[in-house]
Formats: sequence, C-alpha cells, structure tokens
Amino acid sequence: MTWNLYNRLIEGYDWSYDSDGVSGERLAKRLDAIAQIGLTKEAGSHRPGFSLEEKEAKELVAQWMREAGLDVRHDGAGNVFGRLAGKNDEKPALLSGSHLDSVPNGGHFDGPLGVLAALEVAEAWRETGFQPEQPYEVVVFTDEEGSRFNGGFHGSEAVVGNVDIETKLNLTDYNGADFSEVLEEVGLSVDGYVGAERSAEEIEMFVEVHIEQGKQLERENLPCGIVTGIAGPCWLEFTFTGEAGHAGNTPMEDRKDALVAASEFIGAVNTLPAGISETAVATVGKIDNTPNGVNVIPGSVTLYVDIRDIFKETRDELVTQVLAMADKVAEKHNVSVSHDEKMRVAPVPINKDLQKLLAASSQERNITPYYLPSGAGHDAMIIGAKWPVAMLFTQSKDGTSHNPDEWSDLNDCVQPIHVLKDFLEKASDG
Amino acid sequence: MTWNLYNRLIEGYDWSYDSDGVSGERLAKRLDAIAQIGLTKEAGSHRPGFSLEEKEAKELVAQWMREAGLDVRHDGAGNVFGRLAGKNDEKPALLSGSHLDSVPNGGHFDGPLGVLAALEVAEAWRETGFQPEQPYEVVVFTDEEGSRFNGGFHGSEAVVGNVDIETKLNLTDYNGADFSEVLEEVGLSVDGYVGAERSAEEIEMFVEVHIEQGKQLERENLPCGIVTGIAGPCWLEFTFTGEAGHAGNTPMEDRKDALVAASEFIGAVNTLPAGISETAVATVGKIDNTPNGVNVIPGSVTLYVDIRDIFKETRDELVTQVLAMADKVAEKHNVSVSHDEKMRVAPVPINKDLQKLLAASSQERNITPYYLPSGAGHDAMIIGAKWPVAMLFTQSKDGTSHNPDEWSDLNDCVQPIHVLKDFLEKASDG
Repeated sequence: MTWNLYNRLIEGYDWSYDSDGVSGERLAKRLDAIAQIGLTKEAGSHRPGFSLEEKEAKELVAQWMREAGLDVRHDGAGNVFGRLAGKNDEKPALLSGSHLDSVPNGGHFDGPLGVLAALEVAEAWRETGFQPEQPYEVVVFTDEEGSRFNGGFHGSEAVVGNVDIETKLNLTDYNGADFSEVLEEVGLSVDGYVGAERSAEEIEMFVEVHIEQGKQLERENLPCGIVTGIAGPCWLEFTFTGEAGHAGNTPMEDRKDALVAASEFIGAVNTLPAGISETAVATVGKIDNTPNGVNVIPGSVTLYVDIRDIFKETRDELVTQVLAMADKVAEKHNVSVSHDEKMRVAPVPINKDLQKLLAASSQERNITPYYLPSGAGHDAMIIGAKWPVAMLFTQSKDGTSHNPDEWSDLNDCVQPIHVLKDFLEKASDG
Repeated sequence: MTWNLYNRLIEGYDWSYDSDGVSGERLAKRLDAIAQIGLTKEAGSHRPGFSLEEKEAKELVAQWMREAGLDVRHDGAGNVFGRLAGKNDEKPALLSGSHLDSVPNGGHFDGPLGVLAALEVAEAWRETGFQPEQPYEVVVFTDEEGSRFNGGFHGSEAVVGNVDIETKLNLTDYNGADFSEVLEEVGLSVDGYVGAERSAEEIEMFVEVHIEQGKQLERENLPCGIVTGIAGPCWLEFTFTGEAGHAGNTPMEDRKDALVAASEFIGAVNTLPAGISETAVATVGKIDNTPNGVNVIPGSVTLYVDIRDIFKETRDELVTQVLAMADKVAEKHNVSVSHDEKMRVAPVPINKDLQKLLAASSQERNITPYYLPSGAGHDAMIIGAKWPVAMLFTQSKDGTSHNPDEWSDLNDCVQPIHVLKDFLEKASDG
C-alpha cells in the first residue's frame, strides 16, 4: 500500500465546511497528488526550485486550472498564472497563490496550500456561478524556498522586475550548474526570465494563504489569523576575540575568555527585543567556539544574531542596540569584538485596509480575528515591494515546518479558504 | 643550515649562572640534541609515548647518565633510572626527573627540562665531588602526555603500581594497535610493565622541575616558583534541552532557548571560583549547539565544565555549586538539563615541609619564593599517590605550551637547577 496523505487529511474532517462551492475533499485529494511528486522515503516533499519535480507539480496544477475554466499562462520565469476574466476585464487583477517548490525533504503544506486555496476559490465561484468584477488570477511562483541556489524568491522577483541579472548569472546550484543552465534544464531562458516582469497597472493586490510555521494560532485554538507584516531579517556576524589558554594554569582574574563574553552578549540579545516592540525578535542560533577543547579557555567565538521586526524603524533600532551591546560586553570582559552585516532585508508592512477586510471576512465565518506578524519571508514579501499585499496564516501543528512532520488539520485548511473567498468577493466589490 | 635550538638558548645567557658544577651550555646542548629527535617541519617535537622517537631520546639520556657516572636501569614500563649511590646506600632514594615524550608537534621544554635538570644536579655533584647521604636517582618516565592512547602517565603509573591492567589491555592507539602490541614495538611486554612497580621503601620523595605553562612567573619576573599543589580536574558534561523553533516565527516569550540558558550558566560558572578559593578555576572550553542554524532557535546545547583546585574539599565544593547552578538556570529558562561526570581526579597536595625547603633553597639563590598551584597534571601527581612530592616551576614565555612556540629563557632554566641542587643537598642532610 502506498503512502497516502488524503486518508490522513480527511479523517475527522467536518463536512459542514464543504459549502458555497468549497470542497475539503478536493483540497485533500490535490494536496495528496502534489505530495506524491518528489515524495521522499521519509514521506517528505523534495521539489527544489527549477527541478523537474517542481515543473511536474506546476503542470498538474495548470491542468486543474484549465479544468476550473481558468486561462493558463506560463511566464518566462516558470511562474504559472490561471486567469478568470472579470466582469470588467480591463481592471487590474486580484492575485492569489503561493509556490509548489519545497526545501529538501520538506513538508506538504508550505506552498501547496496557498496555491490550492487560491484555486479552490476559483472552483467555488465556478460552481456557484460567481464572476468577480475584476479579473482574478491564481498564481504559482517558481523557487520560493531557494534550496536550489541558497537564495529563493526567483519567481516572484521576476514578476516584480527587481532583478539583478548579473548577480543571478553568477549563481551556481547544488550540482555546479549556473543560473542559465538551470533555466534551460526546465525549458526556460535568461531572456524569458527577465521578460517575466509585470507592470504595476496589471495587478491590484496579492493575497497569500500560508501555514503559520509557528505556534500562536494553535495556542489560540484558531484555524487562521491575519498577518500584520512580514518581518525583514537582519543577520549580523560577531567575532569575540580573547586569549586561549590552559584551563588549569590560568587564574580566573588573568583570563580573556571569549566564550564568557559571548555568553553575556547572548543573554543580553535575548532581553533586548522586549524593550523595542511586541513583534521584535532576536536570536543567536549559530555559535562557533575556538579552539573548543574541554581544557582550553576559548580564544575566539563567532556567532550570528538574527534580528527581525515587521517595522523597519523598530527593527533597525534593535540592530543598533545589539551592536552597542556587543561593544559594551566586549569592553567589560577585556576582549575585542568585530561584526559583519550579512543581510538586511526591509520588512514589508501589510496594508491596514486589507487587514480590516480580512478581519471582516473572518468574522463572517465566525472566526475571531487574530493578528500576528510573519517572522519568515514569503512571496508576499517580494510582491509587497510593488503591490499591496495581504496574508492569511493557517494553524500549524507544533509550529513544525520544513520537514516531513509539517501538518495542518484539514478543518484549519478549509476555513481560511472561505475567508479568502469572502475577502476576494468583498475586495472585488470595493 | 639545520634548525638549531642551542644558538637561540645561549644568546643572552648570563654565564655567571655556570657555577658549582652546573653548566647552562651543557643544558642548552642537551635540550637541542633531544629536540632534534622527532623534529617536525614546524620545528616542534613529535615524540609520542612508546614511539621509537621517545625510545631514541631515552637512549640518548641513558648514555649521558652513564657518562655522568650513574648506574642505569630500564624498567619494564620503559622508564629509565640513573642511580648515584648514597653514602648510606641502604636509605630510600631521592628521585627527580620528568618525561621525554611530547604531544604531537609539541614544544622542547615540557618534560626534557625536568629530566635534564635532574641530570645536571648529578653532573654538578660529580664535578664538585659531592656525594649525597642517600642514593639519588634521575628518572625518565614513559608516556606522560598520553598522546598515544588518549590518556597518559603510563610510566609513572607503573612505578606506583596502581594499574588496572585489564583496562589498559583494551586500549587502542592512534594506529589501531592495542596496548600489548604497542609495548612490543619498543621491546617491552605486559608482564614487564606490571613488574615495574617499586616498593614504598625504595624511595623517599620525588621532586620535578617543569615549565609553568602559565603566565604567573613571567608577570612576577621570577625564574621559578614553588608549586603548592597539583589541581585535580573534574570534567562535567551538561546538556541543556529546550525547543528548537523558527527564529522569525516564535515570539520571545514563547521560547525555550537552550543556548540562552547555557549562556547564563557559562557566565555563572565563571564567577563561582572566586567564592571558593584563590586557586580554584572553572572553565567552559567546549560547547556544541544544535541545530546551530542562523535562523533556528537552539534546541539543545552540550557543554563541558573543567573544574580544578589543589584541595579536594574546595574542588568538590565547587563541583557541587556548579551542579546546583545548572539546575537553577535551567529552571529559570524553562529548559531541562542533564549532566554526566566524565572525570574526577583527586588533587595532590604538596608536602608543606618540602615547600619550605624549596623556599629556603630559592632564597639561597636570591630568588623570592613565589607560590603557585599547578593546574595541569604531571608525573608528580601520579607519584604523589605513594610518595611525598615537590615541584618547581620554570618561567614560560606567554604561558605557551604544547606547541612549537613553547619557550623558556636559558637563564630561567638554569636558576631552578641551582635551587633543585640546593634542595636535594638540604633534603639529603635532613
């Protein structure tokens, strides 16, 4: 008997959520069908960006789009658009979707749920005979996760048109192939990729359904929540340099212990966000100690601080405080410290009116509006640089993501589809 | 031109220290001759325990012993004894020496200096016609460093006779050879090794000259200092277990960050020794963070605490406080902690009378007596389990040891030989 996602999903499904043309059963079957493409022996998804597995998943969705009456178009970046004409088809389109690529041995919800949620709205409208005022497009973005080139968002970046193609041409993938070779493998070209840009007038806004990859909604016992902003990460690398020495022969007062200094810094980094904002976070996730011998006083420690907030001002203020804290702690412990800024991505605020509209649609479905930031990046973060964006998070079990245990209950998957449908109908009216 | 230690040593030598039969020039030539055996391309010493290089160095020293009129004996552990008869040769012997093996690519003073210092006393007595009341033995212990089997003191342990031979027979060296095979390679046998034990009555006491491998004497600008005790290390392994999570999607207040807990613990471990004793030290030298990803909240941290003091009571009290601190910190941060005691070696106190005698001999040579603990283990630590021991530390440049940069000025090497000689004469009188 083969591995089956459908049976697990449908168990305990509340069939009353199958209403207004939305079908949990169809969603479960489609999640299963996508999961079978690139299925790993640990029952995870392996569909790296620009892989044949990702392409196969996109082809399958494109077929479902056609069956749902959508007009399918592939752009030069491999993104797939399924378009439903609006009553007034000259208007800018409402756009919804996500991605189908995965991290290596990833989960089955991160990406596919957002694509299928957007498609399910089109299915429901077809069944109920609803036609939106504006055109509606379901989109599948290519290579969101970035497992191919250690840096993602290749599809959404091409749509926005903010592409430094020279840098991309110098990328090398995990097989040693360069960017143009990788595109060719799946029938794309560099020229086509650059040509995938869409003009601002074509699109009105983008809304993405995505699993939370956190635990807040589970704790609140809510199927979905409204994203208030997408945090932009800043990554700082610090190296504390003291003096290695024999752990037995160096009196405590003669030491320049790099790890003792780094430890005080780690503790301070953990307390700083509370003074900044409710949504700010700072994490030391990676630390490398040298020489790392049981009986040797640490001579140098390199660590990385990941700093995020959904507002640029508070995020940057936190960065400033972390930098100052490193100097203060180093001075106190008589060691030196240097730092290197590895990344600083601008946070993307979510339009307040769109948040209100999502709240109204949630209430329509008897779901208490719950607001939460997105700490992780999503295609909406990239699209947000050019168009208004909104995001709806679905409850994740245990916050687990990027591995085969990633899970969302089918009831929690279907309810945000109703919210999304209502939201799009309201947006189309407005 | 070949690498030469002699020229470097003799430069700046104060020839006035060549007196009473002690020769700095002879010492420098002999340090050089030993350094040439197993010389590495980085100009370090490579003479692992039970290697042909160690054997060659021992043979060379045995030859010098014979030339100095000593009666040479090899025991079954490969230890070399050079005996000078006492006026009353039935009395227990005064013993001095050290080892000739090195860590891989080690220095040229750690070990050889103590052997040659003991031999130089015999040379001086021969030149001045002095004969001690008791017999005097110069000793070379086999495999002090333990680089062969990842655990040393094989020679001195055999002399003490406190040998768990079953455990040793299960050892495997870096080439995959077992203990008996390794002994055979250098012409020894397991039976001979076990038979190397000496009875308590044969020896009165052991005194070892050794480089400090620390910086206290350099800071005090003293050639040598009197060791107050040999610290016994206790190694504790701790694992703090929290909960890994996405650095962006987990609010600060929802975290169980193992590294934040471990960091507070590291800071506390650094402050605890001051409340225990002047000689207590505690060090976190090794830390392993999991999963150690920049954007992942650390789920577990394993670290090692090296705790030492020269008194068992204070060392064990510090161990108790460190264990309690781990529990306290873990509870505060809502993570769990487990520990495993990897080693607990008893500290070896140095006989107060022998310290006083070393102090008197130091003053005889116009050297202010300076007392300091030995944080590192030495053959004297093993011998101290059966016989009274004393140690004299020689100034080390920058505290550097176990690498080719290890250095002691020749003036600082020769002065403790005069102290040793005076000490042995006083001890022989007493």
